Amino acid sequence: MSQPSLIRFGVSIEQDLIKKFDRHIAHAGYDTRSEAIRDLIRARLVEEGVQDPGAAATGVLSLVYDHHKRELEEHLTGLQHDHHEMIIATTHVHLDHHNCLEVILLKGTVGEIREIGSALASFKGVKHSSLSLTTTREIH
Amino acid sequence: MSQPSLIRFGVSIEQDLIKKFDRHIAHAGYDTRSEAIRDLIRARLVEEGVQDPGAAATGVLSLVYDHHKRELEEHLTGLQHDHHEMIIATTHVHLDHHNCLEVILLKGTVGEIREIGSALASFKGVKHSSLSLTTTREIH
Amino acid sequence: MSQPSLIRFGVSIEQDLIKKFDRHIAHAGYDTRSEAIRDLIRARLVEEGVQDPGAAATGVLSLVYDHHKRELEEHLTGLQHDHHEMIIATTHVHLDHHNCLEVILLKGTVGEIREIGSALASFKGVKHSSLSLTTTREIH
Amino acid sequence: MSQPSLIRFGVSIEQDLIKKFDRHIAHAGYDTRSEAIRDLIRARLVEEGVQDPGAAATGVLSLVYDHHKRELEEHLTGLQHDHHEMIIATTHVHLDHHNCLEVILLKGTVGEIREIGSALASFKGVKHSSLSLTTTREIH
Repeated sequence: MSQPSLIRFGVSIEQDLIKKFDRHIAHAGYDTRSEAIRDLIRARLVEEGVQDPGAAATGVLSLVYDHHKRELEEHLTGLQHDHHEMIIATTHVHLDHHNCLEVILLKGTVGEIREIGSALASFKGVKHSSLSLTTTREIH
Repeated sequence: MSQPSLIRFGVSIEQDLIKKFDRHIAHAGYDTRSEAIRDLIRARLVEEGVQDPGAAATGVLSLVYDHHKRELEEHLTGLQHDHHEMIIATTHVHLDHHNCLEVILLKGTVGEIREIGSALASFKGVKHSSLSLTTTREIH
Repeated sequence: MSQPSLIRFGVSIEQDLIKKFDRHIAHAGYDTRSEAIRDLIRARLVEEGVQDPGAAATGVLSLVYDHHKRELEEHLTGLQHDHHEMIIATTHVHLDHHNCLEVILLKGTVGEIREIGSALASFKGVKHSSLSLTTTREIH
Repeated sequence: MSQPSLIRFGVSIEQDLIKKFDRHIAHAGYDTRSEAIRDLIRARLVEEGVQDPGAAATGVLSLVYDHHKRELEEHLTGLQHDHHEMIIATTHVHLDHHNCLEVILLKGTVGEIREIGSALASFKGVKHSSLSLTTTREIH
């Protein structure tokens, strides 16, 4: 497997600003400025990428729900089967006597993933949901 | 298992505003206004809850990384073992020839979860990360 | 001027959840649940509204910049004149010896306002920028 | 006035990633990579800075409200006078027959500014509010 070819370029910056950034990235655990800056760049590109409903993406949908609502689990399973080509995997854990956390890994376009996320979040019994999106083009 | 006791209260609202809301929740898939409003309330309380670093929480951390960086997988595993009491489960999928998605389910305080999230995100080879937090107090 | 006509509807909710919400809205300063819920509904509709680049909106763009960069002020003024039909008003304050805060009130579509915001943020000397958008359809 | 002293450092990056970034910053209007990267760094530091309730900050609070609610304007004015040492300036515009936009520039700690923002947002008649915060330490 060939490595991606690296290039090197120079950045000019105020001494005071880079000192604060160095402190920030040391605390966060980065080894080098380059690594931290590459992460900032990718995060910005992904942020922009997810504005485009047609962009190819990966989604991580977290649902906290009351597992006493039996019809809910059937609905969840049903909806996932209807979109099985978009579901990569699901993980399920019991949080406490009442609540489960279901994490659903999805692939598709940003728009498709948002639509499924919204449909699942609106089910009766789902108490909280959140969706993280990463566009794959930017992180290749 | 006893059901939580429900109460009922009245909301007064402009006709025009509730019409727009009804259209919004129908599109999102809600069956009733009550369900949609409970979700808005919980989302707001969670939003506020995660401002408190000491609040009990569940975290879903998504990491996209280059699996050719062997030392990374060791680091990831090492850090997870050091905090094994906080790790509920992890799910791993291969996105393409280069990239893996690792989703780590965590429990702990908001502050502890953010710290681990930041440490994992800064590893060389991690290309994108995102963290969803839910405080458990609000969704009980 | 006629008042908008109000309607009233009932919401059923877990006792425990409404108690937490009551505490939250009392702390925030709300007089009534209805008022707090109307604000949640409008915030959600606006959140959704600003996803549509064609929606009519109002923007508040905050720019912190170094006022020693003379060419910057000319650029800012130039760009504002080129889009004068979108600029409602600007407010300018001196933050300290180096920095000014310029707040620009804009009207237009979501897409047009974002474009201007991005163009102004990228000027050399602009150190920080942020854009708040409100779609006017939802708050009428 | 002496200029801040600049330093220069090198960043190594995948060729493919920097190409995407160059396209992004050209579209956004940046002249140089250095300028775009300094903005990313400052944005990240400010993002972190506003997590600290005690940090010195500048806030831009936007309120859309119904100006037919007379008591509201009195309340707004009252609250602003009670905190006059925190209010830098306010700008007021008439959006349409019903709605006004009031933009309030504040200085204080992050915590103080959030508290005032929340108090003003909860007034009856305020239909939408949003708060942008910039910590001044990071942008000096």
